[in-house]
Amino acid sequence: MTPLQQQGRLSKLASRTLSTATPAQKNDALESIAATLWQARQQWLDANALDLQAAHEAEMRASLVDRLTLNEDRIHNIVEAVRQVAALPDPIGRVHSMETRPNGLVIGRKSVPLGVIGIIFEARPNVTVDGAVLCLKSGNTVILRGGKEAIHSNRTAATLMRQAIAQVGLDENAIQLVQDTSRESANELMHMNDYLDVLIPRGGAGLIRTVSQTASVPVIRTGEGVCHIYIDKDAELTMGAQILTNAKCSRPSVCNAAECVLVHQDVAADFLAKAIPMLDEYNVTLRCDAESLAIIGSRGEAATDEDWDSEYGDYTLAVKVVSCTQEAMDFIADHGSGHSEAIVTSNYFTAQTFLEQVDAAAVYVNASTRFTDGGEFGLGAEIGISTQKLHARGPMGLEELTSSKFIIYGQGQIR
Amino acid sequence: MTPLQQQGRLSKLASRTLSTATPAQKNDALESIAATLWQARQQWLDANALDLQAAHEAEMRASLVDRLTLNEDRIHNIVEAVRQVAALPDPIGRVHSMETRPNGLVIGRKSVPLGVIGIIFEARPNVTVDGAVLCLKSGNTVILRGGKEAIHSNRTAATLMRQAIAQVGLDENAIQLVQDTSRESANELMHMNDYLDVLIPRGGAGLIRTVSQTASVPVIRTGEGVCHIYIDKDAELTMGAQILTNAKCSRPSVCNAAECVLVHQDVAADFLAKAIPMLDEYNVTLRCDAESLAIIGSRGEAATDEDWDSEYGDYTLAVKVVSCTQEAMDFIADHGSGHSEAIVTSNYFTAQTFLEQVDAAAVYVNASTRFTDGGEFGLGAEIGISTQKLHARGPMGLEELTSSKFIIYGQGQIR
Repeated sequence: MTPLQQQGRLSKLASRTLSTATPAQKNDALESIAATLWQARQQWLDANALDLQAAHEAEMRASLVDRLTLNEDRIHNIVEAVRQVAALPDPIGRVHSMETRPNGLVIGRKSVPLGVIGIIFEARPNVTVDGAVLCLKSGNTVILRGGKEAIHSNRTAATLMRQAIAQVGLDENAIQLVQDTSRESANELMHMNDYLDVLIPRGGAGLIRTVSQTASVPVIRTGEGVCHIYIDKDAELTMGAQILTNAKCSRPSVCNAAECVLVHQDVAADFLAKAIPMLDEYNVTLRCDAESLAIIGSRGEAATDEDWDSEYGDYTLAVKVVSCTQEAMDFIADHGSGHSEAIVTSNYFTAQTFLEQVDAAAVYVNASTRFTDGGEFGLGAEIGISTQKLHARGPMGLEELTSSKFIIYGQGQIR
Repeated sequence: MTPLQQQGRLSKLASRTLSTATPAQKNDALESIAATLWQARQQWLDANALDLQAAHEAEMRASLVDRLTLNEDRIHNIVEAVRQVAALPDPIGRVHSMETRPNGLVIGRKSVPLGVIGIIFEARPNVTVDGAVLCLKSGNTVILRGGKEAIHSNRTAATLMRQAIAQVGLDENAIQLVQDTSRESANELMHMNDYLDVLIPRGGAGLIRTVSQTASVPVIRTGEGVCHIYIDKDAELTMGAQILTNAKCSRPSVCNAAECVLVHQDVAADFLAKAIPMLDEYNVTLRCDAESLAIIGSRGEAATDEDWDSEYGDYTLAVKVVSCTQEAMDFIADHGSGHSEAIVTSNYFTAQTFLEQVDAAAVYVNASTRFTDGGEFGLGAEIGISTQKLHARGPMGLEELTSSKFIIYGQGQIR
């Protein structure tokens, strides 16, 4: 048995008890985690300092260093987030639709944990805590495999969380960290079908693509966002320009940010005249098709084929003129990632057609795609935004970390 | 582009229109399929005769030849099943829990088709029709890849169904059959992530294991059943013997049949004295642990380690004595396939503990595991019984062939 298989076995054993823990036991464990992380924050910061030093020596990009960095404020936020998860309703043990069949069998469907969840992530130490507590609240054990850049921070966080849950009498193996951060450990995790019920990759597009193409364990694919704003001929153009600017510029690095605006030919010149001054405030680079370039002139650059499929994650926007709503929807079907898509229109029928026909996790009329988020949707905490259709689609809250089982009460029935 | 990728592209295109077809359009298509298959039944029987002749030449086992065989009665049943699917409620387009958020956004969750479904199956021509119509009713396009043993029957069925749906104005590419029945075509299908939203293997344990271990396309794993009946010390023994005999003998080849009985040591001798005469009527072979063998004597055979994990699919039963309910539940956790598990007991607390702690798609008290079935559970038609926890668990009806999307009505909201 490899060290990872051994962890898998322990996780599966811990799952047998955690899956039937009461809401009070799980909430006690969460409170214990929050208190322990806060009390031992200096220990966690010291470990983080080792990661930051290594990052400095490796000349890591500033934006990545920022993601890796812990400070007292951030730890405070992480700890508060743990308490918010504790305050959410417990998703386990609800029985939906119990019915008596003609033969007298009473059949109910009960929500149960998925079992053992693997999370593969990169260098954000907050994901360690965040992932662990969402799994714990939903009765799942978790095996965390973070990137090597955050290994000291992650080890300390995992050790503290394990102590914290052991203190309230839960099996510490409900939370485990993979010590080996090599490519081989990620690969082994992706094929541990005997131990893992599901694998959730959290990180950049490259990581997610690799995991979903490689893993034999069932994967929930999250977070790729090539999102469009379509400005219809019947759009209120000022509203459209505000929505576009918000969707592109309020936080360009996240997956619900817009990457491309499609604008109807009848309003293209007027719309761009309104939108460009707003985009100018953020120095947005514009990658344009021939028609929009003819309108914009030297403010834009000619787009290449790659632009239409790019998740820029930056202050760059692809711009394309379309001749009708159908062309916009076809373009979205060909180039969108199925994350979030928006139309700006005042026309009832056009709005309904777009809502009906566009195939994405979230489809908007007259609002910014930036709202695709567990908190904004009222789901509480979020483990990611699923862009696949199986099991979960869109922002995933605690409900999406559950499965169900049929429970059947008989009086001797045979078939 | 390979022929299979070409089929994938056509299926994806057809999905854009089928996903928004009205219930009436889909039901017209189903009625057209039923009528066409019945009218052209002789053509279908002729094609089946070619498959049967090849089976004869290849000296195929009688039970497999039986599965492959069509006759007028069976076609009648298949056609009736199509009409029953048409009569079910349409699972698409329901909006669950539409709510207004504090900022005025109105957010609803709407059921939508999964998209393009691949079904890999073996030599049962009824699966061709059955799979196609369940997908169609739920707005999904389907790519069917059946075994080479049924290729003539499948080609004819697919051709007839495509004609039938084209006649009522739906895109015939909503139903496609893979012409190439080589191992390579199955393998290619398992990696067509750009075209397939989900893959469902239907067939024996070997096929299912290969597909779930190999595919990068999301898989729904169905149909492995290593099911147990646990006879508690507080069981009504006659009821227990009847349930066991039914679970083992009423149809041993199906996945919800029992493979193993666990019996509490306090009642083992009395229970076996009641059960064995009933099992004798079916000449059931008994594979026993040392304790049960000591009770039964020469009526039993000594079990090997393999027996505890075997899905016999035949009139063979593993028998084991346990010292307590916990031992029975641990044994089930170690050797069960997570399909269906039953306890026979009159003790309230023991029953509740078993229901709570046993981790399987269906957990029974005082009833036969043979009830795990879409029809018996009141779900209507069934595409299979999922033994995984992601997306669907237990009998899968039309609801399990759907996904959801968030639809958001705004008035210019930005974040």
